[in-house]
Amino acid sequence: MSISEDQTGILIERATNTNTDDFTDAFGSLGAAGGGGGGGGGGYYSGNNINSSGSSQGAIAQLATRSYGALPNYSARMPTDRHAIEYNMRHKNRGLALIFNHEHFEVPTLKSRSGTNVDCDNLARVLKQLDFEVLTYKDCRLKDLMRHIEWAANQDHSDDDCILVAILSHGELGYIYAKDTQYKLDNIWTYFTAQNCPSLAGKPKLFFIQACQGDRLDPGITMKRMQTETDGESSMSYKIPVHADFLIAYSTIPGFYSWRNTTRGSWFMQSLCSELAANGKRLDILTLLTFVSQRVAVDYESCTPDTPEMHQQKQIPCITTMLTRILRFSDKNPLSSVVRV
Amino acid sequence: MSISEDQTGILIERATNTNTDDFTDAFGSLGAAGGGGGGGGGGYYSGNNINSSGSSQGAIAQLATRSYGALPNYSARMPTDRHAIEYNMRHKNRGLALIFNHEHFEVPTLKSRSGTNVDCDNLARVLKQLDFEVLTYKDCRLKDLMRHIEWAANQDHSDDDCILVAILSHGELGYIYAKDTQYKLDNIWTYFTAQNCPSLAGKPKLFFIQACQGDRLDPGITMKRMQTETDGESSMSYKIPVHADFLIAYSTIPGFYSWRNTTRGSWFMQSLCSELAANGKRLDILTLLTFVSQRVAVDYESCTPDTPEMHQQKQIPCITTMLTRILRFSDKNPLSSVVRV
Repeated sequence: MSISEDQTGILIERATNTNTDDFTDAFGSLGAAGGGGGGGGGGYYSGNNINSSGSSQGAIAQLATRSYGALPNYSARMPTDRHAIEYNMRHKNRGLALIFNHEHFEVPTLKSRSGTNVDCDNLARVLKQLDFEVLTYKDCRLKDLMRHIEWAANQDHSDDDCILVAILSHGELGYIYAKDTQYKLDNIWTYFTAQNCPSLAGKPKLFFIQACQGDRLDPGITMKRMQTETDGESSMSYKIPVHADFLIAYSTIPGFYSWRNTTRGSWFMQSLCSELAANGKRLDILTLLTFVSQRVAVDYESCTPDTPEMHQQKQIPCITTMLTRILRFSDKNPLSSVVRV
Repeated sequence: MSISEDQTGILIERATNTNTDDFTDAFGSLGAAGGGGGGGGGGYYSGNNINSSGSSQGAIAQLATRSYGALPNYSARMPTDRHAIEYNMRHKNRGLALIFNHEHFEVPTLKSRSGTNVDCDNLARVLKQLDFEVLTYKDCRLKDLMRHIEWAANQDHSDDDCILVAILSHGELGYIYAKDTQYKLDNIWTYFTAQNCPSLAGKPKLFFIQACQGDRLDPGITMKRMQTETDGESSMSYKIPVHADFLIAYSTIPGFYSWRNTTRGSWFMQSLCSELAANGKRLDILTLLTFVSQRVAVDYESCTPDTPEMHQQKQIPCITTMLTRILRFSDKNPLSSVVRV
């Protein structure tokens, strides 16, 4: 295949400027007519949709897995000014936080995830402290899980700052497990793209995934000591990519194990909850998640002396952000933080 | 397959505490003996290495693609204190910045990338202003590209703050193009994992990729206006995951096009260079890249009226971070910023 980067070389223009079409380069490798200016081809993403294959991709790659044509002229309300530095977190409500907590499975090969209830309780508590309306779902089959997701995506989020979805389960590269079967994570987040969920357009959509992404181990390396909402100016309507404003925080990098203590919970969720509790209202989310990664990377190490291959292994979380502004869960106005009905 | 999350339920322990092995759960699905305590199995990552398949994965997934066994007891010098909030950016040198700039290709389907030299020049200039030692490589064949990467990874980076690699080329999901052929990005960054490049262990390893990750288009959504380095305490030696401290900034999300103006350069590199020039020494890298994403998402839109299917499309960059501390390219001591020989 030779589907490749920006080989169009097509002219783009600052949307704020007057559009001019100085030059349109040919679309070389996809069979459209060569030479400039020709409308040529069409169906650029029909025959060549790499993502529609069933091959396992990294979790993030799945953002693109659902195929849909170019959807013209979707629009949504602007939750903040075009060039605002911070997301508007002054809506009436913080928003929904859905936690899918998986302990027991019907898939015979999957063991129960001891410790996950500790994770779930801790996460629910800190998210409530950050003014989220927390909804927890235990051991859902895929059909029920999707029903809850669909319900959430169909709500009117106009009065909400953002949405958060956390999944605590078994996983492998590209897949995660519901009680009865595996599924791809894109089944979740495509519900929340800007055209599918307009009342969340321009607002943060946050996903926290505690699950393996494979069976590889990170042996680590020993470090030895050496000597030594401010809003922008007013703006008119503007377009944003439908995939903007997502953040996906994965407990581990693609291909690797994610570790869980059977009594204290997973390393990632322990670290996330500690950091959210300590600094959740003070630090922006990316700084906060950087410190979560530091906790996991520096403070934890597997202890399985009876299984030497698994012993003294390390883990590093993997944070992928398409956020476009600083996100901070600052205190909501007490008067406006009334309970959602 | 049923290789799955932390199904081990194995006890872990804060490395700072005394290790205890209260409980070791069985390794259910991989054929190891059930029940606690058994050494069982072995070869956990040999037969079941999902990543060794040739299937295309997202760019980030490739971090895990190279397989190697558990490598015991690697060690490296600690460039900063264990719980330092910021990376130590006070080494003698900022470090190397390698830019691989691809304009012309030998692959027949790939068109020349007009505008890439503008990107390359701009990026080289701003990186020099941030005290990097910039090395640019034009239109390398894969063999030469890998030779340069191998050379860089084999340098002694003890006096360097970090390393940066930028690639400007054609790409598709999971692959990027050298002059003569495609390759997987993991071929690049595995050279710099902590065990492969110990003098960069614990230091930021930054990758900036301007390339398509597929051929999908983001139609965007219109937003309409509504009414309304401080070091931690001293610490002893500690282990970090060998995959920590990477940051990979991709111009677009997996599956999607990345846009380039034939005279002004790519949207992503234009935005990155503007942001690095304006705020490169002041803001931390994740905040800075958030604003790069904002510029790309909000300020750019394709203008190809002669090719309606490609017209008025949007783009959102995709930043994946395994950083464990705040990274800021603050001014280096003038006395120490002597030219590297």
